[in-house]
Order: sequence, then structure tokens, then C-alpha cells
Amino acid sequence: MSDAVIAYLATHRDAILDRLKVLLRIPSVSTDPAFGPHMDAARDVLLARLRDAGLADARLLESDGQPAIFASWMGAPGKPTLIVYGHYDVQPADPLELWRTPPFEPIEIDGRLYARGASDVKGSTTIAIETVAAFLAVTGGCPVNIKLFLEGEEECGSPSLRGIVARYSDLLAADALLSADGGRASTTVPTVGVGGRGITGLEMTLRTAAKDGHSGRYGGAARNALREIAALLASLHDDQGRIRVAGFGDDAKPISNAMRAAAAALPFDEAQWYADFGGLPWGDPADTVRERTTLRPTIEINGLWGGYTGAGTKTVLPAEAHAKLTLRLAPGMDPAHAQARLRAHLHSHLPDGVQLELTPESGGTPAATLDEEHPMLSAAIGVLERVHGQPAYAARAGGTLPITAIFKEMLGMESMMFGLAMPDEDVHTPNEFFRLSSFDEGLRTWPLLLTELGKLTPADFHRS
Amino acid sequence: MSDAVIAYLATHRDAILDRLKVLLRIPSVSTDPAFGPHMDAARDVLLARLRDAGLADARLLESDGQPAIFASWMGAPGKPTLIVYGHYDVQPADPLELWRTPPFEPIEIDGRLYARGASDVKGSTTIAIETVAAFLAVTGGCPVNIKLFLEGEEECGSPSLRGIVARYSDLLAADALLSADGGRASTTVPTVGVGGRGITGLEMTLRTAAKDGHSGRYGGAARNALREIAALLASLHDDQGRIRVAGFGDDAKPISNAMRAAAAALPFDEAQWYADFGGLPWGDPADTVRERTTLRPTIEINGLWGGYTGAGTKTVLPAEAHAKLTLRLAPGMDPAHAQARLRAHLHSHLPDGVQLELTPESGGTPAATLDEEHPMLSAAIGVLERVHGQPAYAARAGGTLPITAIFKEMLGMESMMFGLAMPDEDVHTPNEFFRLSSFDEGLRTWPLLLTELGKLTPADFHRS
Repeated sequence: MSDAVIAYLATHRDAILDRLKVLLRIPSVSTDPAFGPHMDAARDVLLARLRDAGLADARLLESDGQPAIFASWMGAPGKPTLIVYGHYDVQPADPLELWRTPPFEPIEIDGRLYARGASDVKGSTTIAIETVAAFLAVTGGCPVNIKLFLEGEEECGSPSLRGIVARYSDLLAADALLSADGGRASTTVPTVGVGGRGITGLEMTLRTAAKDGHSGRYGGAARNALREIAALLASLHDDQGRIRVAGFGDDAKPISNAMRAAAAALPFDEAQWYADFGGLPWGDPADTVRERTTLRPTIEINGLWGGYTGAGTKTVLPAEAHAKLTLRLAPGMDPAHAQARLRAHLHSHLPDGVQLELTPESGGTPAATLDEEHPMLSAAIGVLERVHGQPAYAARAGGTLPITAIFKEMLGMESMMFGLAMPDEDVHTPNEFFRLSSFDEGLRTWPLLLTELGKLTPADFHRS
Repeated sequence: MSDAVIAYLATHRDAILDRLKVLLRIPSVSTDPAFGPHMDAARDVLLARLRDAGLADARLLESDGQPAIFASWMGAPGKPTLIVYGHYDVQPADPLELWRTPPFEPIEIDGRLYARGASDVKGSTTIAIETVAAFLAVTGGCPVNIKLFLEGEEECGSPSLRGIVARYSDLLAADALLSADGGRASTTVPTVGVGGRGITGLEMTLRTAAKDGHSGRYGGAARNALREIAALLASLHDDQGRIRVAGFGDDAKPISNAMRAAAAALPFDEAQWYADFGGLPWGDPADTVRERTTLRPTIEINGLWGGYTGAGTKTVLPAEAHAKLTLRLAPGMDPAHAQARLRAHLHSHLPDGVQLELTPESGGTPAATLDEEHPMLSAAIGVLERVHGQPAYAARAGGTLPITAIFKEMLGMESMMFGLAMPDEDVHTPNEFFRLSSFDEGLRTWPLLLTELGKLTPADFHRS
């Protein structure tokens, strides 16, 4: 059955790629309200495609924020039911001046499709949708029951996702979640995503005076907000990158030998990793890079600003400074507890009189992990090994897919990530791209995976 | 003679105020090239006024940057010749959102004239120009020979001033410089400005990677540029504000008991000073606030930025960070030496592999000091005591007037500052204002001062 579907997808490959490009031309940036109309446009395009594919119940699941898109095909009674997950929002494109081509004008160069969202994750989302559409077109049905769930706030921390899940929990009942987001952990060996770190974040506003001052008049006798925020941020780590926040991570699951072994199983060249990124070592040297990026927590400064940042100089003593921080959470860590530890550190390191306002961006999401014995993982590994002719690996990611933790917590559902993105595709940064070879590969592996999952019973999904 | 001039200025007060408002409506921001046409407009308005006042030789002194405006009246042979200094450029108005009224729409509220440049220094510059114009209108001449010199780059560190002085050194020959910039050191007692700190500055660009990364993917194992710039900036001072840069200030003139006594002579309420500004103590507690702000050097961060600073969150690991710094220099300090000490500190505190680019904004200006025995100082103190009926004081400023150091170095000329601005008028920051009472006072004290200076001989200016 999957052979015919794969052939169909190959025949329609250019039309599918064109549909992906239509989606990539829409700047569906969820974090900035100014892009609201583009979010509407992205939803319209996707709803039309789903209905055209025969998913007549395609609709929006409303929430306080950006609605999710839902569509289902439930014509295989007795077979497993899968939530197929993707998201239609993207990260902001700035800094725009560092893009070599316009971020919302997809362009193919040397086997790569460049555009914001190509890799994260409109490319893999399109593969998932088109696989379902192809099964319906070729065979009139799917090997498993399908509930497509396309989120609109993944790139801003999924603030409304709990609300949607609570409101539509009956509609979203399924045996597991299969995600098009959460891509490969390697450019050289095939991998299946079995979990990610958690995330929480906050924004800091620090004040040292009622107003800005003249740096000649006040300089030397009055605190400078930029100096104070620098000192505060510098106190979070030691010089090598070990976190110096008391109690931060004390609820993390101890890293077992088995966890270290799993992290070490994936072929990974640390020197090459640094060379590809052009970055510098950071973090506890006692941990491998894979451990540091998947099993250890982080506190990262994502943005920092204050004072005069225009052309030339302004001799100002700034009264206010700002920073945006996100924390990645190791397995076991509670987002609220991590926030509390960080807040306690910041307040205890503040000189007398300096004011600090901390705004939580959202409650946060804990880390998530798929059991290594889960039969859908074996199915996915098998498909990848068959297509690639080489061993495939289960791999944790350093990033966060909030839905995996939220569906586990609220619906008791396990998640597996079967995205096609590779780790060097500059997601969240300028010149994001998606390999066209991955696009073509996905149009083969997704039909095979759905076919394999159709050989399992619903009970198989709940055994481990 | 001065009575008739003072009466003339009082009669024409509203017209003079209107001319000041015309000038304030022009956003003559010198630091940002985008404001170039407004710089032209400010020059046109001033040249027209000077010619209209009878200064037929009013002209531009060209340079590599913004030209200065020059005009002279030399009809008093045997009398002293004074450079009367002001500047027609202003600081940027941002952050615009903190202004309660539009920065370039002057408005009178409760005896205050609000506008960018009202206090610094179009207000006092207008007083100086109109005083000369009134002498010419009423008496057909001035008590002293006058060379008006209006700079266009004071607010961006006077980068072209040395070039102008070198090119026009003969034209600029005079017995002393009398500045409309450099205002009062107190809101409660009258003061004359006898010097300021020096200044130099640099801009930092720090890089930790070839490109931005995804904070989930790279976070925990790769350095973050924002964290590194925070640590670097935090290393410049101890927790109380003492500078921790090796050798910085080692060429400063030792603070003598006489310097401490002079700083202490001015009535000054430290608690009130902090309360007015709403700021927090900083700097060596062994020094008074007046000493810290006029006799000690500083390193101040004027601007700091990097990463994502827009709405919402972006989970980015920033590769690049920026800061703007200015240094205020104590008497005796060489700008190049201070820069070299700071650069050495920054480079020696940089972790391996982190790249730091330092851009000098300009060479800098040393501190300047008028001898306390100079007869023009006695004349100015006398005028202020007569008008105010209370003791007046010589006072150093914390800010910098590059021209005073440059005219001293290149032309051997002493400077005195007789501006009307008061220290609480929010210069360089939002809601700058100028007291209308100061405006009226200047229209009395400037004629009196020129009259008193006319009683001196040129030789009196060169005795101390």
C-alpha cells in the first residue's frame, strides 16, 4: 500500500513543493502581534488544503491566542489513532540585514530551500499533511486513524496550548502523538526524536534612577542601570559556564549511566560541531557536548538592551536596562521551581535600592522523554534503517516541544518526533534552510511509518 | 552703558524668546547623519540673525564635519578680544516615548521652556548672541572686541574642532574664551564655570560565534555573546563603583587639599542631589559627591544591546553584542593613555576565542581648569554677586566642553563658562527644559559681564 502512496507523492512532488512555498511566503510570526493578519492567512491556506484533501472536518480550535488547526480521518476502526502534530507559526526573521535572500521569499539554491520556517517547521509539516492526503487520494483511507493538530504558538512558548487541550480533550483523544517538529539530531546518521529539554523564561527590567542622567553631571556618583544589569547577568555562571544559581536544577533527575550511554551512542564529533557553528566551548567540561545540550539545564540571555543604541554617541547615564532570558530544563525539573530559584538569585544579588521587575513570559514546560521500549519507536527506527541502509538512533533534543510535555501531562499521551529538519539548518537565525533531499526523503519515510504503525494495535501503544 | 542695553533687551524680550523658539524647532542632532538637513537649517537661521544684527562678516568655518559659525565685531581697538562660544547642535531626543511634550516643539509650562536644546545650549547661546546684538543696536559698539564662534559638533565630541582651529588659528586669535555653554553648578547659589572633566569614548563589538544559534540546540555548550559582554562590563568596577582597570587614572593630578577645599566651598546637599535625580550612590565613599563628579574619572556604559529585543521571545543564542562607553577624565589624565588602559583591561579579561573589536569614536579631550586668580573670573563673580545679592562661587563641572581644552592646547587660550543652564534641567535626557527666569537673568548678566570685561586691558588676561 505504501509503495503506491510513495509513487503518488513522487509524481506530485513539484505541486507539493509549490504548496510549501505558498506557505513559506506568509510571514506567520506568532510572537509579534503586528503579524496577526499573516497568521490568519496561514490558517486559511492550510484549512483550504486540508478540505481539498478530503478532510471535511478541518476547523480551528479557538483559544485565548492563536487558534490551532484540526482535521481528522477516523475511518480505520480498531486501528491506532495518532495525533499528527506540526505548527504553522515561525520565529521572527530579524536581524533582517543578515539574510542573504529575503526571508519570506523561498528560493532553491544548491539543493536547499531557503526561507524562514522552511526547516522549522513548515517543511516537515507539509510532508505530514501531504502524506495523509496521498493515502486518502490513492487508497481512500489511512493505515491508522489520524487527527491532524497544527499549532499556531509553538514559537512563542505555546501559551494557549493548555487551554486548547483542556477545552478539546475529548476531540484530541488518541493513542500517541507523532510530531513533524523535532527533527534529526545529526546530519550524518538518521535519528528519531524521543524527547527534549523543558523551557521557561522571564523578562527583566532593572532601574537605578527615576530618569536618565547626563553622564558628565551624574557619572561617578550614581549607579548606571547598564552596569548593574551586566553585573547581575554575569553572576549567573562561572567563567566556564557552570550555573551559579543556588538550588537551580536540584530537582533534576540524576544523570544515570544509562542516560550517559544513550547520549554517547549517537555518533557525534564535538570538534566538528563547534567548527560548523563557529562557536566557543561553554559549560561543565566533565559533561560531553551532547550531555550539556540535552541533559543539563541552561540559563541563556536571548536579548539585552538599554541606553543609547543609535548612531554616534550620547553621553547618557541610563536609568533602565532590559534583558530577556530563557531557561532550558533537564528531565525532572519543575519550571516553577527553576523560575523561583532564578528569581531568588537575582533579588539576592541586587545592590540596595536597585529595582528589578521580573515578568514571567509563561509558566513553562518540563522536559519530555519517550520510553526507549515503546513500539512506535521501534517502528520508526526500522523505517529509517530500511530507507537509509544504516543504523538509526533514538536521540534527545536540546530544544523544547511544549506539546510533548503538555499532552503527556494532560492527556497521558506519549510523543515521538519524526521531523526531517537537520541540526545545521539555521533555524531561529538568518538564512534558515531545508534540504530538498530531506523533503524527498520525508515523502518516502512518512508513508512507510504510517503503514508500520498501522500494524500495531492500540493496546501496543500503552504497554510500556 | 549696560543699563540702556539691559533695558533694550527687556523691551525686546518676547521677540528674542520667539527667535529662540525658532531655533528650538530645528532638530539639529549632530551625532546622526540623518539630521544633516536640519543642521543646515539651524546654520541658516543663525547666519541670518547675525547679519541682521550688523555682524556683516558672519560666515561658516568649514571642516570635515559640521561647520562652525563665525562672526566678529572688532571696533574697540586696545580693548580685550573675546571668543564668545556657543553651539547650535543638540543631543538626540530619544527615548521619544518618555517626553511629555514633543521635543522639538518648545512649550512654556510653569515658567519653564521645554524642548531638546533649550538648556543645552540654544538658550544661553541665544542670550550671548542677543547681548552682542543689543550693544550694537543701542550703542553702535561693544565694550570688548567680539568673535562669536558657534560650534556644530559639541554634542558628538567635537571631532572636527581641532581641524577648524588649525585652519583658522589667525582668525580665532583672542585674549580669552567666554562660553555660553557650561552652566551653573547649583540651583540655589550662583556659580561661574572654571573647568570640566575630559572625555574619550569607544564602542565595543564582541563576538562569540560565527552566527546566532538556537538556544535549545546550542545552549549549554556554546558561549553567549550577551553573557560575555555582561561579564566584561561587570569587571570594570567593584560593587561600590571604584574603577578596577589597572593603571586607569595613574596620570591624574593628585587631588590636593586646595582642590578638595574648592570643591567643598560650594554649598551642596548630597542627599538632596540624590533625591532630585532619584538615583543611587556609586563611587568611592571616601570622596564627596562633588569630588566624585568633578575630580574623579569615570567609565560609563551609555548603551548596550544584542540579541532579540522585540516583542515576545526569541530563543536565540546571540553571537554578537555591542556597547558604547564614555570615559570622563580627571585633571591631568591623557585621553590616549586612558583609552590604552581600558583596552588593555578589556583584552586581558576576554576568554579564549572571544573576539572584541574596539572602535574609537574620537581621540578625546583632556580636562580643563581656569586659574582661580584670573581677572575675568573675579569680574564674573562680581557681576553675579551684584545681581543676586548673595555670594557666587567658582565651580568645576562634571561634564566636558572640548573647546576649552582644545583652545588651551592649540591657541594657549583660557576659558570661562558663564552659561545660564541649571543642573536639574534634564539635558541629554527626555523633558529637557530651561528656566525662563534664567533666560531673563542672562539678558541682565551678560551685558554687565561684557561691560566689566571692557574695563580690563588685554594684558590683564595674560597675567596669571
